[in-house]
Amino acid sequence: MERNIARLRGRLHGLGVSFRPHLKTAKSVEVARRAMTSPEGPATVSTLKEAEQFIAAGVRDLIYAVGIAPSKLGQVVALRASGADLAVVLDTVEQAQAVAAASRAAGMRIPALIEIDCDGHRSGVLPTDRERLVAIGQALQEGAELRGVLTHAGGSYAARGAEALQQCAETERRSVVDAATILQDAGLACPVRSVGSTPTAHHASDLAGVTEVRAGVFMFFDLVMAGIGVCQVDDIALSVLATVIGHQHDKGWILIDAGWMAMSQDKGTSRQAVNQGYGLVCDSAGRPYGDVIVADANQEHGIITVRPGSGRALPQLAIGEQVRILPNHACATGAQHRSYHVVRGTSDRVEAEWPRFGGWQ
Amino acid sequence: MERNIARLRGRLHGLGVSFRPHLKTAKSVEVARRAMTSPEGPATVSTLKEAEQFIAAGVRDLIYAVGIAPSKLGQVVALRASGADLAVVLDTVEQAQAVAAASRAAGMRIPALIEIDCDGHRSGVLPTDRERLVAIGQALQEGAELRGVLTHAGGSYAARGAEALQQCAETERRSVVDAATILQDAGLACPVRSVGSTPTAHHASDLAGVTEVRAGVFMFFDLVMAGIGVCQVDDIALSVLATVIGHQHDKGWILIDAGWMAMSQDKGTSRQAVNQGYGLVCDSAGRPYGDVIVADANQEHGIITVRPGSGRALPQLAIGEQVRILPNHACATGAQHRSYHVVRGTSDRVEAEWPRFGGWQ
Repeated sequence: MERNIARLRGRLHGLGVSFRPHLKTAKSVEVARRAMTSPEGPATVSTLKEAEQFIAAGVRDLIYAVGIAPSKLGQVVALRASGADLAVVLDTVEQAQAVAAASRAAGMRIPALIEIDCDGHRSGVLPTDRERLVAIGQALQEGAELRGVLTHAGGSYAARGAEALQQCAETERRSVVDAATILQDAGLACPVRSVGSTPTAHHASDLAGVTEVRAGVFMFFDLVMAGIGVCQVDDIALSVLATVIGHQHDKGWILIDAGWMAMSQDKGTSRQAVNQGYGLVCDSAGRPYGDVIVADANQEHGIITVRPGSGRALPQLAIGEQVRILPNHACATGAQHRSYHVVRGTSDRVEAEWPRFGGWQ
Repeated sequence: MERNIARLRGRLHGLGVSFRPHLKTAKSVEVARRAMTSPEGPATVSTLKEAEQFIAAGVRDLIYAVGIAPSKLGQVVALRASGADLAVVLDTVEQAQAVAAASRAAGMRIPALIEIDCDGHRSGVLPTDRERLVAIGQALQEGAELRGVLTHAGGSYAARGAEALQQCAETERRSVVDAATILQDAGLACPVRSVGSTPTAHHASDLAGVTEVRAGVFMFFDLVMAGIGVCQVDDIALSVLATVIGHQHDKGWILIDAGWMAMSQDKGTSRQAVNQGYGLVCDSAGRPYGDVIVADANQEHGIITVRPGSGRALPQLAIGEQVRILPNHACATGAQHRSYHVVRGTSDRVEAEWPRFGGWQ
């Protein structure tokens, strides 16, 4: 984890942009402190529960990067009143009007970023939609603050190879620069131009016009990121420690006490070249056996097999032996657990236990 | 939920077997008290954390129904020493020897049930494998207690229609009766013959030789169970309340603030006749719009669309409006939340908030 953080931080420093890590993957104050460039931020969150927890831990500069629902503005006002600079994100005039009205009612200018749709994968205003961008910006001016524009190249998760990822990064960059230009041309200041996804953050070669980069899963990485080519399997800093509880020798199955409750049901590698099932099986020191995966899972049972067609032999694992499973998706697997047991390298000595939180309110 | 519990309880009473609800779905003391036939049980759990929590709440008769790892026997002994009759499950001689050794060391006969493999879907001894059954039973005799045999017809989740489900139930019944007969013929008493899965529990017509039935997801039901034909959509007693946060009108998308973190990534209906995506969309009172689903999900974003090919119109839902999403798999969706907000019928008045727990230790 330390290596992954140092790598991306160094990269973004070289590109001359500030770094606003997304804390939704870790949901842990201890991890956040290691990921952020200062104890006060900046950082990104995906729920107001995260905002509340990190503000309580001293973070002062946050973007809540999921489109704001008007019913949540009361909590935003309360969190801002506690001394934190919490900004919201939106992509409609209705939301901008609600943020402006809440700002007037509270006597504070709530800062908002307009979400830009750079690749059609989810929410946001098209960077070419001058009319909507300006209408939102103007609606915010009625009491709130237009902080800037923000986009997330979620489509980069489906890209493969450095060239395609560089293209995603450039599309992401251009979308915020173009949108900011439209707003500025309409007389609306747009100081922040925020981009980010783990794949594009690791492949952008020019971030001219961008002020900050967000990324989350990079701290831990996972098999999906390894499958895209953003990291090596050896970079994956999150694993689930499981115990062998049975065998079905005739079928070539080893049963472990980690099912989907421990791994999550994320099968994100099933659409990649190498399907890792519910996770890649390593020895207890974290060394992959190679082509040994959790092929199926029930709530508390995992079924380990050799990857079909690989010709490998199943490792000999006795009842009670421990294995580590690398996850497809660190955000999803982390969310199934209440804390992290911190180990260094291949050591199995637990140096610390870091709590993580969940929930929304 | 009350109706679902009453229905299965009445059914099993009529079949003359006792009912040992599985508490892994709900992980809630409040739900458990309503599901169990007495405050002291019997009940089933999938983790020792569940055992610990329910024992602390007064439950006294529990089966931990995941194959026991020797390293967990210390905790089993401690929980039994606190006054609860906690039994373990196993399917190998190695486990039986470990349970017998732990029993001798603790000076208590730890009760164990031999898991039977009735349909090849997971763990267990084949009900025809006389040699292994007797060897396990004899190994337990060296200090532990052979409490009985147990099976779970997990294969019933892939069955369709009443006839196929009745056949699964009969196969499940016969597997424990056959295994118990083998053990008894070898001079090994086998008082408990435990079967269970929600589909078979609702379709068994004869449970001769069975002493108890387990089931878990029946309390809440879900879209997978509705797809199998075990319940109606109207029986589903668990939903996620979400808020509209955006639209992509050109694409026919409504965005909500419930993604896979709120719904889980269970896509169990994708292999059924009707694919419900990440969940079926209802109005805030729980009435389905019909053919409107959460078609895609990111961590905190859900994308609502009309089911392709249905010809339905997308409902008009403004920013801030609320919807309820019915889940594919209640066990998985429940696990994403820290408490239940209890409502009755179509009322939106929250009568109570029931905490739920997670984790393993």
